Order: sequence, then C-alpha cells, then structure tokens
Amino acid sequence: MRYRPVQEKRVWLHRRGHSEGWREAPDAEFAGTMPDQPAVISTSEQGGQDELEMLRRIGRQWASSSIVRRQRDRKLPVDLALGVFRPPTPSRFGRFAPVQFFRAEAPDELVATTPASLPETRLGRGIVRIKRVVLGPPLPTSAVSQERMGTVVALAVLGSDLLSSVAYGPEAMIAVLVLGGSAALGLSLPIAAALVALMITLGVSYRQTIRAYPNGAGSYVVASDNLGRRAGLVAAAGLLSDYVLTVAVSVASGVDALTSAAPRLAPHGTAIGLAVILALLGGNLRGVRQAGAIFAAPTYAFLVATVALIVVGLAQAGRRDFQPMAPPPVHATEAVTLFLVLRAFSSGATSMTGLEAVSNALPAFRPVEWRNGQATLTWMVSIMVAMFGGLVTLIHLDGIVPMAGETVLSQLGHAVFGGGLLYAYLQGATLLILMLAANTAYNDFPRLLSFMARDDFAPRLFLRVGDRLALTNGMVVLSTVASLLVITFRGRTESLIPLYAVGVFLAFTLSQTGMVMHWWRNRSAHWRKNIIVNGAGAALTAAVTVTVAVTKFTGGAWVTLLAIPLLVGLFVRIHSHYHFVDTTLSLRDTPSNRSVAHVPADDEVQKVGDGEATPQQMRHLIVVPVSRLHLASLRALAYAASFATPAFAVHIAPSEEDAEKFRERWAAWGNHIRLETIVSPYRAIVPPLTHYLEALHNQRPDLTITVVLYELVPARRWEQLLHSRVAVRLRRALRPLPDLVITSVPFHLYRSTPARDGNMTMGSGGRSRPDRVAEGT
Amino acid sequence: MRYRPVQEKRVWLHRRGHSEGWREAPDAEFAGTMPDQPAVISTSEQGGQDELEMLRRIGRQWASSSIVRRQRDRKLPVDLALGVFRPPTPSRFGRFAPVQFFRAEAPDELVATTPASLPETRLGRGIVRIKRVVLGPPLPTSAVSQERMGTVVALAVLGSDLLSSVAYGPEAMIAVLVLGGSAALGLSLPIAAALVALMITLGVSYRQTIRAYPNGAGSYVVASDNLGRRAGLVAAAGLLSDYVLTVAVSVASGVDALTSAAPRLAPHGTAIGLAVILALLGGNLRGVRQAGAIFAAPTYAFLVATVALIVVGLAQAGRRDFQPMAPPPVHATEAVTLFLVLRAFSSGATSMTGLEAVSNALPAFRPVEWRNGQATLTWMVSIMVAMFGGLVTLIHLDGIVPMAGETVLSQLGHAVFGGGLLYAYLQGATLLILMLAANTAYNDFPRLLSFMARDDFAPRLFLRVGDRLALTNGMVVLSTVASLLVITFRGRTESLIPLYAVGVFLAFTLSQTGMVMHWWRNRSAHWRKNIIVNGAGAALTAAVTVTVAVTKFTGGAWVTLLAIPLLVGLFVRIHSHYHFVDTTLSLRDTPSNRSVAHVPADDEVQKVGDGEATPQQMRHLIVVPVSRLHLASLRALAYAASFATPAFAVHIAPSEEDAEKFRERWAAWGNHIRLETIVSPYRAIVPPLTHYLEALHNQRPDLTITVVLYELVPARRWEQLLHSRVAVRLRRALRPLPDLVITSVPFHLYRSTPARDGNMTMGSGGRSRPDRVAEGT
Repeated sequence: MRYRPVQEKRVWLHRRGHSEGWREAPDAEFAGTMPDQPAVISTSEQGGQDELEMLRRIGRQWASSSIVRRQRDRKLPVDLALGVFRPPTPSRFGRFAPVQFFRAEAPDELVATTPASLPETRLGRGIVRIKRVVLGPPLPTSAVSQERMGTVVALAVLGSDLLSSVAYGPEAMIAVLVLGGSAALGLSLPIAAALVALMITLGVSYRQTIRAYPNGAGSYVVASDNLGRRAGLVAAAGLLSDYVLTVAVSVASGVDALTSAAPRLAPHGTAIGLAVILALLGGNLRGVRQAGAIFAAPTYAFLVATVALIVVGLAQAGRRDFQPMAPPPVHATEAVTLFLVLRAFSSGATSMTGLEAVSNALPAFRPVEWRNGQATLTWMVSIMVAMFGGLVTLIHLDGIVPMAGETVLSQLGHAVFGGGLLYAYLQGATLLILMLAANTAYNDFPRLLSFMARDDFAPRLFLRVGDRLALTNGMVVLSTVASLLVITFRGRTESLIPLYAVGVFLAFTLSQTGMVMHWWRNRSAHWRKNIIVNGAGAALTAAVTVTVAVTKFTGGAWVTLLAIPLLVGLFVRIHSHYHFVDTTLSLRDTPSNRSVAHVPADDEVQKVGDGEATPQQMRHLIVVPVSRLHLASLRALAYAASFATPAFAVHIAPSEEDAEKFRERWAAWGNHIRLETIVSPYRAIVPPLTHYLEALHNQRPDLTITVVLYELVPARRWEQLLHSRVAVRLRRALRPLPDLVITSVPFHLYRSTPARDGNMTMGSGGRSRPDRVAEGT
Repeated sequence: MRYRPVQEKRVWLHRRGHSEGWREAPDAEFAGTMPDQPAVISTSEQGGQDELEMLRRIGRQWASSSIVRRQRDRKLPVDLALGVFRPPTPSRFGRFAPVQFFRAEAPDELVATTPASLPETRLGRGIVRIKRVVLGPPLPTSAVSQERMGTVVALAVLGSDLLSSVAYGPEAMIAVLVLGGSAALGLSLPIAAALVALMITLGVSYRQTIRAYPNGAGSYVVASDNLGRRAGLVAAAGLLSDYVLTVAVSVASGVDALTSAAPRLAPHGTAIGLAVILALLGGNLRGVRQAGAIFAAPTYAFLVATVALIVVGLAQAGRRDFQPMAPPPVHATEAVTLFLVLRAFSSGATSMTGLEAVSNALPAFRPVEWRNGQATLTWMVSIMVAMFGGLVTLIHLDGIVPMAGETVLSQLGHAVFGGGLLYAYLQGATLLILMLAANTAYNDFPRLLSFMARDDFAPRLFLRVGDRLALTNGMVVLSTVASLLVITFRGRTESLIPLYAVGVFLAFTLSQTGMVMHWWRNRSAHWRKNIIVNGAGAALTAAVTVTVAVTKFTGGAWVTLLAIPLLVGLFVRIHSHYHFVDTTLSLRDTPSNRSVAHVPADDEVQKVGDGEATPQQMRHLIVVPVSRLHLASLRALAYAASFATPAFAVHIAPSEEDAEKFRERWAAWGNHIRLETIVSPYRAIVPPLTHYLEALHNQRPDLTITVVLYELVPARRWEQLLHSRVAVRLRRALRPLPDLVITSVPFHLYRSTPARDGNMTMGSGGRSRPDRVAEGT
C-alpha cells in the first residue's frame, strides 16, 4: 500500500457546523474564559454597539482602497479548510509527511482535537504526557458543570475552615495567657466567652449580608459595592493574605497534629508541610470539585471526635464534681496586664477565620441559595460555639497548658481517651479537617483573583483556565507563597498566627461597614434593625482589627499591615496599566492625512507612532542586515526583494578593508540590491545598526521599516551556542523603535534534509517529524 | 533659534573614503577578527575564486527576473547616507528627535563612532558605562600593535610560569617522600637529579622544535601537523586543562605564600584566591599586554630573592661544613617502595610546567625569532635547573619538611633570613611571580582556543575580540573554570597538583613525538641527530606521562584523564557541526524547476526545504493570527494586506459561540481579509495553530508562509507579566517549521505617546528617547 487512506488517520482538527449560541469573547489575549463568570466587563466595551459601529467605519476606510479590493479578489493558493485530501508522497527515505489530519464539515471553521493541542516538539510532548499522567486528560470547555450543595454537604465543605480553627485557636489563646503565669490561666474562660459573643454577633451579621447579596456576598464585592473600589481592594488584599495564611497555618497545624501523635516525624515537619501543599496543589490542578460526599467525611469525623472528646471529658470531670485540676506550675514571664489579655483575645480570634466562607460560595448552594446559606451559617456558628466553648472549658478543667512538641488538643486526647484507638482517631480527624480547610483556600484564592482580574485589578493570566478547567495560575501562586511561609517560619504555627487575624478581620470590618452603608442607602424594610445588627458586627470586628494590629504588631502583624497597602498599590497600578492599554488599543478613526505619498518637507515631518491602521497608509522600506553572502542571507535577500517595495541591505564591517572586501563580493554577485556598509571600528554590531535604523526612521517617520533577519536554526539546542546570537540581540534592541517591523527568515540546519540540491524529499526541517508520525498515526 | 545646526551635533557615524586595503572577512557571524591571526581558514573557502564564480552565477539567476530588475530601478524613499540634514521639529512637548548624528564623505559607507556603539536603552548604557569605568574606553581595531620582546623581557614574561613552579614543585615532591618517614627524605636529592636531567633533555629537545617551527611551535600546531588532527586535539585538550590548572595552582600557591607570612588570613584563603582570579580577569579584560618592563619586575625580583636565599643558605650550611640538619622526626605511614618514589617524582615534575611557553610565543619575539627564542629557552632552563637544584639541596641541608600552614619556601626563608625584611621580600616576590604565572595562562588559554575556533574545533565565539581587543570569552571561561577548581578544592595546592602534570606531559609527549615524525619525514640536515634528541624527549616525557597517570590516578589524575577524551569528543562534534553548517550554507545553484506557478498535482508534491534563493522563486502566503480586533491587530492586518500577496487571518476560539461572535465582528468590519476560525475546545492556542500552519505547508510546500504576529510592547519590563506571552511562545513553536517566516509587528504601549489621534509629535515610542537626547547632545 503506497498511500494510507484518510480514514485511518487520526482527526486532529475537524469541522463543525455553526451553532446558534452567542457569548462574549474573553478579554484577555487568547485566554479561555472562566466557566462561571459573567460576560466580560471591560473598559474597552468589547462587543458593544459603539465598537461595532467603529469597526464598520474603519472597515469603510479600508474598503476605499484599491489595495484592499485587490486583496479581497485574490484567490488563496491553499485550501484553508484543509478539505482537499492529498496523500503524502513517500520519499526515497521512507518517511511520510504528517499532512491532512483533518476533516471538513462546514466552511471557515475547524475544530482542534486533542492531538492538535499537543506541542510539536518531542520535549514539549513529553512534558504534556507527564502532566496528563499526574493531572488527568484535558477537559473540554463544555465539560463545566457546577454541583450545587445542600445544607449537609455545605456545612462540611464550607465549615471545614471555621471548625478546624479549634485545632489551633484555643491553644493560641492559652499560649499567650501562660506568659502571665498560672494565675492568668483562669482568664481563659471569660476571654472565651467574649470570643463566643463575637462569633454569634458576626454570625447574625453575616446572615443579613447573605440575604442582601444572594448572588455572592464576598467582602470584595460588598466593600467595592458600598464603600468604593479602594475599600474593595483593601478587603481583597486582606482576604488574599488570609487565604495564603489559611493554607500555611492549616498545614502547619495538621503537621503538628501528626507529630504530636508520632513525635519521630517532628524533625521533618517542614518537609511534610511542603509535601502536603504539593499534594493539595496537584489535587486541585486535577480539578477536584468543591462538593462531594468524600469531602463531607473529614468534617463530620472531626465533629464526632470533638463532641466525643468534650462529652467524655466533661463526664470524667463530672465524676470529680467539675473540680479543675491544677495546671502544672508555670513561671510568669510577664505581668497580667490588659495588653496581655487583649493579646490572648487576638490570638483566640483566629478561630473565627473561615466564617466568611458561606457568603463567598452562595452561588454553589441549591436554590433558594440565600436560605440554604443562612441555614448552613447558623449551623456552622452554633457548632463552632459549642465546640470552642466546650474545648476551652475542658482545657481549663483538665489543667492543660501548651507545651512544645504536643498540641493542646493532643494533650486533651491523651488525658481523656488515654493513648488508644480513640486518640488516634481524634488526631487523624484533626489532620484531615485541617487539610480540607487548607483546600478551601485553593477554591477561594484563585476565584477571588479571577474576579479581580476580570475587573482589571489583577494580571489577566489569573483568568486563564487550565487543561482541567481549574484556575491553574492562582493555585500555583497560592502554593508558592504558602510554601515560602512554611519554609520561612519552619512550620511553627505560633509564629504564623500573628500574621493571620489582621487580614481576616480587616475584610470582616469592611464587609460589615459596607452592609451598614447598604442599608443606609437603600432604606428597605427593617433598615434600622439591619443597620444595628451589621453596625454591631462592624464595630466589634473593627475593634478586633485594631486590637490585633496593635497587640500583634511586633509579633508579625506588621508584615500583613505592610503587605496590604503594597498589594492595593499594585492592584491600582495594574488597573491603570490595563486601562491605558485598553484605551490605546481601542478602535478609533485613524488620521487620513497621511495617505499623501511624498517626502515631507522640513516643517512637515510628523510622527504618528504605531498608528497606521489601513493598508493604503503603509509606506514600506525593507532593510536586510547581511554579515556574509551565503545561502541563508541570500534567502533573506530574495525574500526582501520578492515584494514590490523598496529594499536595501546593510553590512557592518569591523574595518574599512573588510567593508571593501564585502563590497567586492557584493559586486560579483551583481549588486542586485543597494548595499550600505557601516564600519564599526569598535566591533559593535547591534548598537550602530539600531542607531542607523532610528536615523532612517527619523528621516521619514511615515515609513514602516521592515528589518529582515535571517536566523540559523540548528537541530539541537546546544548547537545554538556555536552560533552568534546577533539576530536575537538585534530583535531585542529593535523592539522599542517605533514603526519598525521585524521579520525573521529561518534557515534550518537539519541533517535530515539531505536534498537541498533539488532532490525530492518530504519532511525537510523535520527532526521533530518522524517521531510525531510514529505517534500520530 | 529653532533648529540646532549640524555642527553642534555629535557625530555618531561618519563617512570615510575607501581604502586600498584588502583583508579576509571574519568567518564567524559578524565577529571581529583576532588582530594577530592569519587570514581565515575555513572549509567554506570564503572569498575564494570558486565562490566568486558561484556568486556571479547566482547573480545571473537573479538578473533574469523582472522582479529583481524592478527592485533595482526602484528609488529608495530615504537617503541611506543620512547626508541630507533635516533638523528636527521641536514638538509641542519640547522634545527633539535625535536625528542626523552623521557626516557623509564617500558613498555607501558610514563609520560608527563611539556613541553609536552604545546601546539604546538606559539600562544597557548604564552597564556599558560601568564596564568602561572598570575596563577603560573601547579600542578601535586599528589600535592593535604587538610589542616584540627581546631576551631580557621574554625571560621575565615567558619564564614566570616555569620559574614560579619552584614555589610548589619541590614541596610537592618532598610532601610525598615524607609519607615514607625520615628515611625516605634522603631520596629527595637523587629524585631531584633525575628531574634536572629531564629538564635539560626537554630544554634541548624544545630548542630543536623552535628551530623547526619558527612561527610558533605550540604542541597543538606541532602535533596536528605531524601526527594528525586527533593528536593535535589531544595535545590541545591537555594544554587547556594545563592552563586552567596553572591559574588554579598558581593562585592557590600565591595565597599560601601570603598566608604563610600572615597566618591570620588563612581562613579566608578561598575568598582571597577568588578575588585574585577576578583581578586577573579584570586586568586582562582591560587588555594588559604581555610585554613591558613592569612585567619583568616580579620575575627578576623572585630570581634575586631565590638566589640570595640559596647563596646565604649555602653559606650558613658551609659554616657547619654542609652537615645536613636532622629533620624533625616524621612517622612513616607508607613503606618506601618504588611506587612512592615514582609518586614523588611525578609530583616534582609539576615544576616543569611552563617550559612550553617560549615555543608558543615565538611570533612575539624580536627577529630573528627562533634565535631569540632559543636563547631565552636556554637561559630559562639553566636558571630553573640552578634554582630547583639549589632549593632542593638547601631543603635537605636545613632538614625542612612540609607542614600545614606554612610553605617550605617560607620555612626556608625563616630559617635562612630569620623573620625580617628579607623574608618579607622573599614572600612578596613569590606571591608576585605566581600571579604573573597565572597571568600567562590568560594569554595562552584564549589564544589556543581562538586558534582552535579558527580551525572550527571550538565555538566561534572564542574568536570574538572585545572592546579592549582582548579575547574576552576565552578569559571568562578560564576564570570560571579556575574559580570552580579553587572552590572545589578549597584552594589546597596539594589536592590540585595531581590533576596538573598529566595534561602538560601529554602535550609535551605529543609535541616531541610530532617532532620525531617531522624529522623522519623531512630528512633534512642532521635529521638523525635531531630524531635522537627529540626522541629522547618524547620517550622521557611519555614515561613521565604514564608514571604520573598511574601513580596519581586515584589522587585526581583520573579527572584529567577523563576530561581529555571528553574534550576531544566535544571538539570533534563542534567541528562536524561547523562543517555541516558551512556545507549547508555554501553557495550553489538552486533548482530552477520550481519557478512554475501552479498547484502541484498529487504525485508532484515536492519539498525543497529552505532552498528558495531567488526572488522569482518565492511564492508568498501571509497568515495573520488574530485574537481580538483592536488597533494592534488591525495594524498587523493592514501590514499583511498592504503587500500584493495572498493573505488571510486565523482566529482561535475556545468555543463555537466565541468563534461565531468573532465572525460577526469580522463581518461588521467588512470581511476585508479571509478569516478562518479554529475552535480549540481544550483552550490550547499555540499547538493547534502550529499544526494548522504545518498542514498548510504540506498542502503547498512550494509556498513561503509568512506569519504576521502583532506584539504589544509595554514601556516597563514588569508590565510584560500582565500580557500573554502567546506571540513569544508561537514564535518559538514555529521556528522549526520549514519555509515559514515570522514577522512581528510591534505595538508600543508607551505613555509618552499622547498623540495617537493625529497630533503631530516627535519621539513616539520614545521612553528611551528623552534621556538619550539629553546625553547625546
């Protein structure tokens, strides 16, 4: 069989009929859209009626030109649909060219299939293959489906962050009190009571927010909406730092739970933490969805474990008539001051992180979303209050104080359950819920960044959806920053906690203040009552924010307090850049006064930047830098000369003699193209050429100068080292020059092309070809 | 005054009349030639009569085309000579465009002045400015002048490497003997006698080599010439490793001399060593010449110090009737075997490194070169024999054994001079001559590499001459490798020495063997005597090579023995690559059977690679990938449409809806260019486009496809992160495809261009402009 029939070939791109659908194109360059985001909001109003009108006007400008009309009439020398099947001619070297992997159904549209999405190079395909083994096959954009959650699942999924906080919150609080000595330990109960009151207030306050923003009541949205962009950005910066710290603290706490049970692993704490972050990243890049029964398990397991711990513990305490056991004598290192109490309160307040989860995730609830959300929030806060209160009481009753190497929860477990299976279950459940809590940040962080990118406040690369429909870039950034934190603080939970609470409570405050503004502006039913509830929330959280910022300032809160304004500044700069770009790129009429083709007189020299927008306005000049006359440079010269536009060549010589020598060779060739030589006595090549081209540009700013560079492309990467990088350096140096187009004419140095002298072979330039044929067929 | 007159402007490029001279163009791409190297020897026979004939034939092919004739008749829209002075119009923003920094004198040639050799960007100019402060202003190619040396200077400059070896050679020898205990120390005198005999033989042998190769008798040349390329490469590899080790060992020894005198500095040995290498690199990059009286000073100072040491020492010993003092009792750790003796001999043989310096540097001698060279060599070897013999005798008489922290020479100095000024002078002179010895490697290593690059055995970048006419790249490589050695071995001379001798003696052996072959082939006068002399040298050095390789194998010689064949293999691969490139690029007739402009029938599909060499053979197709319709993409479309060639646009959409949406916008614009949309359900962009273009290429392999990419160029580097890198990735992916030309149409996002709407301003795209104007005027 000489030709392989088309049916046997794998279809790489196939045609599809047009659909009726209409959707906004993504705003980011070539970027895929987030499946669950609304139509693109952009300052350039892509797709708006104004823009269509402008397109039509520009189109009319084009249509007036005979160049364009001739271009339209020109027949293309290829079949764009790739529909004409022509089997490859087997060469005498027995290779087949991998053409025609396509099928046509409707005009002007092709559909790329999976193999067409693979890179061309062997290395690239190898990387993709490894990625697919780890992360699974790519999912088409149409595979998006969002599972909706009921209360039971939502409580587990969204509650994990909040509920897992009891693994470190009470401990952080008591760890501060201990500094005041045994006497101060008694203050844990009143402080815990204050925290419980705060929790309940916040819970009630957020219930109202959920009712008012049933489509998603994240702090960024609520604050932006009611207090202005700047406040929204501050809230966003607070939340972003919160999410990063959620990962770092949860992972560090999880590792603590593990090393409390298995002290042998303690020296490898940081490494285990990093491995956990990597695993979380991998799982989330695969596109692990928020919902699902497996995700409910850890939360409920932890719930059961904690409740059992509290019940059994209280029962044991009941047998001794709730007589608190004396804690081991601790030496006071600080006086028991209000400052110490406030610090303990601030540390305990980290237990409240994750309370905002429900409000962020409202769109993921089953309808009626806000009602299910409120129910979930109520349950969540109630359970939290019970667990937090119970644990603090039990810690007090059992006289437990934080100690190095074992968490308070682990100590409680040992005290209550002994060391058996129940203890192991408690530690395992703690570890799992902490991982799950870290995992929630993998949903929230990229989503918030994508919201911000949609509003042009974050780089648009955070809009990009990966192979598995995950917001890959945000996840990678989150993992990187969290890993750095784990490494910097060597996974010590207590050093991370001071950084933690500021961001969250700042976001809480802005969100609640925003709600107050909301009610004040809208004056809907019950607005007075609502203002009081949200106002109380705002006042309390503001007080906590200030308390945390002040008491933890030297302990690490300064990092967050410094990072937030820097982040906000960055967001604003990014926004202003995108705004500038959108304005610069946006369609508008171009000056038509430049279509006169004459050398402008002295006082007429004009500069219009990169403004030529119609073919008839283009005045071409082609420049070919030539170092030697060989096949590659001759090919570049032939390319330049083959257009009906003025062209000339430049040669840079290190000395006059060299220049003269080159001119003689040029003359021998026939002087087909005008040659200009530049002697560069200091042997520089790129700068003189750049200056020369700039001078030409300044002579005739209306010209579009095309620099045609030939580039040798060796077959192997290391061979690149054997050739000068002049073309690359030149391209970089020429990039900033206006109205300068750079064309590179590659010349392939591939050994698999033995037939340069006219033999008929297929697959020239095809080092990458044989292996792909082997794979693609 | 509105215009600044031309006289006030600094001339950046100026015209110069043609000179009579004729010189070979450098073979490397755009590279400056080494001043002292002969005309380029290249496999491609650049500039040969054959090639000129071929150029004429290709030229006639071109001339047959009407496209080329029309191209020749076309008037260029600019004055290439930049001679027409047009003063810049000051814009309303008060900026001047930096045009017309040029002066014209003769047609078709400009000369770049220093400012024109400066980069355009502020960062680039900053780097250049720092470089110039450190290394001095650039030197024009015409500034080359080689100072010729007489015997007195040559002895100092070329002898430093050999003579400085007495600072570590005797110590290395005795350090081995000490392992055999006090008894073995007595063997130092007979071993030294054997080494002296070897030195004299080698000296006589090299005198003959110098006579036979009066233009330079380096081992690479002699071995290549007489024993074939492979032997030459082995010698070269040996010498390269020798030069690197010369730097490492000399610097380490110099640091030892310093820390012997000032033990406080001992912990910083490695850092001092690296600083010395950096200083040597800096000095040599400045272009410190070999010759000169300052360079003679250290050698003669060291000579005086050593002679004084020996004379005073012997006088003191004479007072006790040359009775050797008992060395401190040393514990034997090894038996005194032949192996130990041979190891001691091998270590002592490192004293002979540098003996080849004269033969390498013959062209730098005053005429008659060979006679001056022979005289220098005789003096050098005589002094060496006296110093080596005297020092070993003195060490024996004073009963000195190597100890940690102080060199043997320093101990001798203490023993003979006490601790005063004379001792300090001895140590200072030792330090200086060792630096000078290291410095000789900075001349030899880059020169050898440039010879090899000229023969295509080393990357051509080693031919490149820097701003200061130094062979910059070779020096940087030498410094890097030597620094790595100093770091790896923590500057311990004794660990570096086993690596040292193999390379040198291998090169000696090959050179001497080559001479034997030379005499045998030529049978000139006295050939029998000459063969005996060189044969004795060859036999002895071969014996030493084997001894060193065997006895030092586990001590480190294996590194050199492994490196040499690897290096030779690399040289051969490099040669074969360049040969392939030269053959591929070399001029030849191109097939003319491709000028038929029709779509080839099925069995006629042909692939001719990157072979189009004449404009009439070019069949164009322009493809414009478009993601959105904005000014940048419209500019790329206008660019593509402005040529009289077929063009079409491709759009990649993540879904059918997006594709449909884009087509509607395209239609609103007017469908001026044919649009093909590709739906990529997996959101990949680069691979589907690459596959599509490849399929088009396979449909019509005779077409040259030009891909026109628009690229957004932001003003600041960090802003690049805010934009997709699709254009860059696409360019990389498309590079390997045959017959595919990539054109990038930049669109500048510069805030300094407020006048996109038609206002007349100068210096658009000119963030780099204002500062340069300020500087250039």
